[in-house]
Amino acid sequence: MKCMIVEERIDYDGSQIGSLWAYSRFGLQDDSIVCFRGACNIPLKHMIDLEDRIHQERIESQDMIHFIAEHFDVPSLKMAYARQRLLACIAEETLKDGGYIVSRKGDDLFYGGGKLSISIASTSAVSSKIHFGINVECEEYMSLGKMGLRDAGGLMRQIGERYALEMDDVEKDMRKSRPLEVFGL
Amino acid sequence: MKCMIVEERIDYDGSQIGSLWAYSRFGLQDDSIVCFRGACNIPLKHMIDLEDRIHQERIESQDMIHFIAEHFDVPSLKMAYARQRLLACIAEETLKDGGYIVSRKGDDLFYGGGKLSISIASTSAVSSKIHFGINVECEEYMSLGKMGLRDAGGLMRQIGERYALEMDDVEKDMRKSRPLEVFGL
Amino acid sequence: MKCMIVEERIDYDGSQIGSLWAYSRFGLQDDSIVCFRGACNIPLKHMIDLEDRIHQERIESQDMIHFIAEHFDVPSLKMAYARQRLLACIAEETLKDGGYIVSRKGDDLFYGGGKLSISIASTSAVSSKIHFGINVECEEYMSLGKMGLRDAGGLMRQIGERYALEMDDVEKDMRKSRPLEVFGL
Amino acid sequence: MKCMIVEERIDYDGSQIGSLWAYSRFGLQDDSIVCFRGACNIPLKHMIDLEDRIHQERIESQDMIHFIAEHFDVPSLKMAYARQRLLACIAEETLKDGGYIVSRKGDDLFYGGGKLSISIASTSAVSSKIHFGINVECEEYMSLGKMGLRDAGGLMRQIGERYALEMDDVEKDMRKSRPLEVFGL
Amino acid sequence: MKCMIVEERIDYDGSQIGSLWAYSRFGLQDDSIVCFRGACNIPLKHMIDLEDRIHQERIESQDMIHFIAEHFDVPSLKMAYARQRLLACIAEETLKDGGYIVSRKGDDLFYGGGKLSISIASTSAVSSKIHFGINVECEEYMSLGKMGLRDAGGLMRQIGERYALEMDDVEKDMRKSRPLEVFGL
Amino acid sequence: MKCMIVEERIDYDGSQIGSLWAYSRFGLQDDSIVCFRGACNIPLKHMIDLEDRIHQERIESQDMIHFIAEHFDVPSLKMAYARQRLLACIAEETLKDGGYIVSRKGDDLFYGGGKLSISIASTSAVSSKIHFGINVECEEYMSLGKMGLRDAGGLMRQIGERYALEMDDVEKDMRKSRPLEVFGL
Repeated sequence: MKCMIVEERIDYDGSQIGSLWAYSRFGLQDDSIVCFRGACNIPLKHMIDLEDRIHQERIESQDMIHFIAEHFDVPSLKMAYARQRLLACIAEETLKDGGYIVSRKGDDLFYGGGKLSISIASTSAVSSKIHFGINVECEEYMSLGKMGLRDAGGLMRQIGERYALEMDDVEKDMRKSRPLEVFGL
Repeated sequence: MKCMIVEERIDYDGSQIGSLWAYSRFGLQDDSIVCFRGACNIPLKHMIDLEDRIHQERIESQDMIHFIAEHFDVPSLKMAYARQRLLACIAEETLKDGGYIVSRKGDDLFYGGGKLSISIASTSAVSSKIHFGINVECEEYMSLGKMGLRDAGGLMRQIGERYALEMDDVEKDMRKSRPLEVFGL
Repeated sequence: MKCMIVEERIDYDGSQIGSLWAYSRFGLQDDSIVCFRGACNIPLKHMIDLEDRIHQERIESQDMIHFIAEHFDVPSLKMAYARQRLLACIAEETLKDGGYIVSRKGDDLFYGGGKLSISIASTSAVSSKIHFGINVECEEYMSLGKMGLRDAGGLMRQIGERYALEMDDVEKDMRKSRPLEVFGL
Repeated sequence: MKCMIVEERIDYDGSQIGSLWAYSRFGLQDDSIVCFRGACNIPLKHMIDLEDRIHQERIESQDMIHFIAEHFDVPSLKMAYARQRLLACIAEETLKDGGYIVSRKGDDLFYGGGKLSISIASTSAVSSKIHFGINVECEEYMSLGKMGLRDAGGLMRQIGERYALEMDDVEKDMRKSRPLEVFGL
Repeated sequence: MKCMIVEERIDYDGSQIGSLWAYSRFGLQDDSIVCFRGACNIPLKHMIDLEDRIHQERIESQDMIHFIAEHFDVPSLKMAYARQRLLACIAEETLKDGGYIVSRKGDDLFYGGGKLSISIASTSAVSSKIHFGINVECEEYMSLGKMGLRDAGGLMRQIGERYALEMDDVEKDMRKSRPLEVFGL
Repeated sequence: MKCMIVEERIDYDGSQIGSLWAYSRFGLQDDSIVCFRGACNIPLKHMIDLEDRIHQERIESQDMIHFIAEHFDVPSLKMAYARQRLLACIAEETLKDGGYIVSRKGDDLFYGGGKLSISIASTSAVSSKIHFGINVECEEYMSLGKMGLRDAGGLMRQIGERYALEMDDVEKDMRKSRPLEVFGL
């Protein structure tokens, strides 16, 4: 799995969750996690979570680090969500290793009671994708800035690389495990 | 998903990783995580990880808390391993919430550089399963005892319940996400 | 699986077969069968069955009981159709238990040679769905009214509940069956 | 799907539920339902239903009509059970058309309160299979004989042929249904 | 699997790669390979290969033989591409048997260094499809005409029939293979 | 996908078709094609093809080049057979490029009317595998020796590398193809 760190700024508007964005934008032909920094402003038409659509939530932030993971191996909603939870856990662990104890509830990270992140996962007929974003600066919610964490770029790189390594590690573990028997037979 | 806390002691000998153990032993007819306490001693014939078999590793511990998760929904090795990583993350988070900062590498937890846990995942044609065990007392490796954590039973219950809640939460999130479009179309 | 009986009248116009209708309309985050009563009038753009589209069939009825089943576990067309047939059988059985011997051919029910029902099944990338409708009053085709069955609401509730129970029962049976061996080995 | 009516008598001992029996015995290289008549006596080692194994149920009958369906298209336990229910419904309908009103509960048929049938379904890594058997003569349970139905062979042929037709019909319906959209989008 | 040879001329404009074209146009309710002759001119909006879209490639040819395969059994992108490669191989073999040694690279055939064919594969939620086209006459690229092969219609029929036979043969082989064991166990 | 060329001689006895042989023998934790040279002698208990078992065919040869492909991504029998056919085509193409025009029928290669190869494919719950073998020397059947092809080792390496490249190429193509629409909508 490829981890790509984008140097330029990209504002997330929800179009990047579309299948094949990584190919269209960067020519990637691997499963990938693309990491970039930019504002976040998702118009209604790009919202994947119907709860947000129905409540017409404004999802925006001036400055975030974004992660877009795309997997073509198993285009399943259930797998997409299992991997989304793992990505949230990896972000939590990376922050913890940096000395910031955040808590996780489902796909959300919290610090000092304030919501630090947003996330969604879904699938098309060809690929499943995850968006995970962490506020760098944000008036309304918690942010890395308010937490006193300055190196958002470094954090972004670490989270992206860890996720890619985790997926590669899973692929390796799968290839040394024999099938299960049935208990008692 | 059902979380079952077993009051009696069960020594883990690797037979419990077999499909349908939860049904055979407890009559469970749900996806489940069964949590129990006991020694660990896995004879060669029950080892799922071929690396351990080949190296004839002795996998044993006097006292562990054990988690046996079984899922019938998608009997896939890849899904089994994604969920195994999530279970390891949830154990890590639960310890963190109790004030113990452990680190995770793949499916292993470490404390003070010492290995605290063992794990395996695999699948049969009917179900996929995970075993995750944390040392309560162990001479050779790190243990909850050495860490000063006394309430192994309480920890066991929390981890089991969190895993079941996480899986239920994923099922809910899946049911409000619309499919992805293709970028640029 | 949740069975929901809707008290208010809903006219079926084919939009309800869309994925996530049950969430959008009722906030359901389970696999579900939603049962309601209302007219039926499906414009061309909402027809799933291309045969109907091509022949520009007018699919309408003044008064029907409707069943909308949605499954997120296996978004497969083949599974959707197996379950559609089961739903038709369950409707047939429920009528039989009420003393009305109808016959079934594929996904259609007949009484006295007259067609009593309509049905379609399909899938998106996130869920598979079934619509099954039984005429309560209908000039052109057979109807519960013409059969002399007065309690359409009671029938609706029974069919919906039986389908949900059947699906739950399948989930239970799956979790006590060991895998097959190969004959002669 | 092929329906094969076996003229000779075959006693069912549970080995026939093994994958590839139809190939090994008759050279069939299709999805198939093989129908035959014979006694039923299933030793413990061939029991697929762990409930029966655990309770050491004696499953036997002097004379039954048997149906062995094998599908290679989707070796999934969930699909196997959906199809098993359909096969039970088809048996029920065929009896109904012959004037015998039986009732179904899950995979069991009842007449006059007496159990008339047995069934199991499961999967291996290569095929999923169903066994469905109806008592022709049986001391302990209900039987076609007690019901006064004499032409067990004719019934057997009708049920087998209907199941094969139903599966073919599903394959046809699948190939004229467009994918679903999402409600409200 | 059905092989259909269309007598009339059809110009390929990319709409034929859409799911259910074979049903809409010819009423086919089987997995199928439809073979026809006509020009090729694919407007941007019908391009499946994003590489072509991005580079705004003009994909056109005055006269081609076309193959449209549609499979409903496993709507998977990975399976679609495995089958696409097989179709390219079968075209290569059929030409070889006619005395024309072409080479294949991925999904492209070459003769004398000139590109002879185009192809794409993809999937929707209901079916996966392949388009494979071979130039009969073409100014810019290699063509059967330039190779001196006159009977394009005969070639078309042979390739289509071989592909259908190959798929049927795979279905047969699948139904006589027992599952694998694990090495050393 | 990894292509491994084994320098030492290995006699194929059918045990190598077992899942996880590549890991157990060489520590490979990738999808792989392992290529080696040695005799072939498959005892009954290792035969995967029931046709061979039933007819008690003696499958042996003094000297062959062998290919063992193992895929963990989709443990499906149908996919295993599609890939087996592709491997046979690639062997045929490689021979053709060396000036030897062989013909293929299903998974068999022929030269001058004589059978040159053997093959089988199947799956376990964890991986699907293919064995493909070409006679280097063989009394009873056709062989590379009889064809006058001396560099069996070079041929082996080319076939193995081509197969691995083909699979990698498919993975790339999959990641630039948008999903299909429905014809006419």
